[in-house]
Amino acid sequence: MKKIVVALGGNAIQANDNSATAQQKAVQKTMKVIAQMIEQGDQVAITHGNGPQVGNLLLQQHAGASKDNPAMPLDTISAMTQGSIGYWMQKALDDQLHADNYPSQAVTLVTQTIVAADDPAFNNPTKPIGPFYDFNEMQKQQIYHPDYCYKQDAGRGYRQVVPSPKPVEIVNAPIIRNLLKNHFIPIACGGGGIPVIVKDGHLRGVAGVIDKDFSAAKMAEDINADELVILTTVDHAFLNYGKENQQAIGKIKVEQLKQYLAAGYFAAGSMKPKIEAAIEFVEKTGNLAIITSLSNANKLADGVGTIVYN
Amino acid sequence: MKKIVVALGGNAIQANDNSATAQQKAVQKTMKVIAQMIEQGDQVAITHGNGPQVGNLLLQQHAGASKDNPAMPLDTISAMTQGSIGYWMQKALDDQLHADNYPSQAVTLVTQTIVAADDPAFNNPTKPIGPFYDFNEMQKQQIYHPDYCYKQDAGRGYRQVVPSPKPVEIVNAPIIRNLLKNHFIPIACGGGGIPVIVKDGHLRGVAGVIDKDFSAAKMAEDINADELVILTTVDHAFLNYGKENQQAIGKIKVEQLKQYLAAGYFAAGSMKPKIEAAIEFVEKTGNLAIITSLSNANKLADGVGTIVYN
Repeated sequence: MKKIVVALGGNAIQANDNSATAQQKAVQKTMKVIAQMIEQGDQVAITHGNGPQVGNLLLQQHAGASKDNPAMPLDTISAMTQGSIGYWMQKALDDQLHADNYPSQAVTLVTQTIVAADDPAFNNPTKPIGPFYDFNEMQKQQIYHPDYCYKQDAGRGYRQVVPSPKPVEIVNAPIIRNLLKNHFIPIACGGGGIPVIVKDGHLRGVAGVIDKDFSAAKMAEDINADELVILTTVDHAFLNYGKENQQAIGKIKVEQLKQYLAAGYFAAGSMKPKIEAAIEFVEKTGNLAIITSLSNANKLADGVGTIVYN
Repeated sequence: MKKIVVALGGNAIQANDNSATAQQKAVQKTMKVIAQMIEQGDQVAITHGNGPQVGNLLLQQHAGASKDNPAMPLDTISAMTQGSIGYWMQKALDDQLHADNYPSQAVTLVTQTIVAADDPAFNNPTKPIGPFYDFNEMQKQQIYHPDYCYKQDAGRGYRQVVPSPKPVEIVNAPIIRNLLKNHFIPIACGGGGIPVIVKDGHLRGVAGVIDKDFSAAKMAEDINADELVILTTVDHAFLNYGKENQQAIGKIKVEQLKQYLAAGYFAAGSMKPKIEAAIEFVEKTGNLAIITSLSNANKLADGVGTIVYN
């Protein structure tokens, strides 16, 4: 029996519209495949992104905020989306497992991820979140949130920008390990986990967004997973993706993949972080990382996808 | 070593304002006492209300909603507040346990509570939630949500009303039990749990609010707890509360308490549901239920509070 961390991308939740009904339908479709994977007998922990959901909730929070009912900060909003997406996922997965008579249960863990207080990302916040403001509105916001950083965004106004620090430790890894050992299915570290720093011995939430592929790799490392499986929209990573001479990458040694990465083959914000996360996990643990499509999740035994080994 | 379910009321989170900072400060104060209780060596599972938070989030969602970014339904919003309040609680509790060198860790479980599809409450929704609408706005809302029920509220307009069904089963009880056995501290069933019904073998979220005292009693029953501890603002339940002849209730046999309940001694929406939940747990299990103030949580061994026994 293998211990596997499965990282789900945006396509696992994405729907034609942003209603709860449409998103839950997409999640149900995803969980049919994930259930088949689980029913092959491995221990599976699930993690997922939350980009569109956290962005939408942030916009609503700011549009609907008042003096008596202020918008919540980003760490709390991230916790909210762990709650909502996790609820959709655990309900859909439990339904499918129940239909298949498979005796296990999923549960969502509100998960904190420690980042370094001196992570260089904090000096260079790059990730824009939330609504656009004109200059006056932005100044007003700064009165309420003097610690927030705003940047001009290509003539469309000002937006809050937050750092994207690297994960250092998954706070709740001992509990994820324990649940797997007892044959439950933890859904954890949603949206990369709520970023916290350690200050004077205390955990302190920070405004930031951790890349979910990096946190998946860290979670897989911290729970001693045998495999990290990153599910996305394509069956493989490719060289020369989208060009006439594109070439799917199958089984590949981590050293070779590092050379391709250094040569600039992978698109930032898309395949690149997945490749980096896979390399990180394989180098640290000597175990396998697999990048493939969501629809391949139940065919891992056939050797599908880009398989990175040491 | 005893297994205890602790139910926290609104005063565990309540602050002078609704900002995340103020609410987190209140939670930190609460968790200092809860940590002392835990450090006496018992297995403790925590549950809590979410009334003000779910109401505030619902108001923001509706005020900030758009066609592209619609308001989420109540079950999803309830999951969101389990995420946010749970995050505040687990962080504050972990900090205190760490400061005290106590080797345990808290984690929030997104928890579903099964209610009966034929619960009579569904024919008589009584709990108003969310914003007030005038007649025309209410009719517009009904186009988007034909299944919602709206009632006129004393000349102030129309509001959605939802049922308050009784909890039948805590879906995630096996995981709560498992975590307690392994010396972790689950925070579960926040806001009474996300209400779900079972329909055609599937879990289906419903708009409703489960009373958190009743779900705490059900959770205590489902995990075989030795004690149910309901923490509130007063040290005891009282006869003739607030009157000159008020009388604190100390140790009391469940039969006697039922007589007081029937005689109308306890205020609806306040002490009454706590008394009912305590009676329910004690009658079903033969174990103890204690109602006392939050500040007494670390003095349970001294026999404080209203102690209900069989």
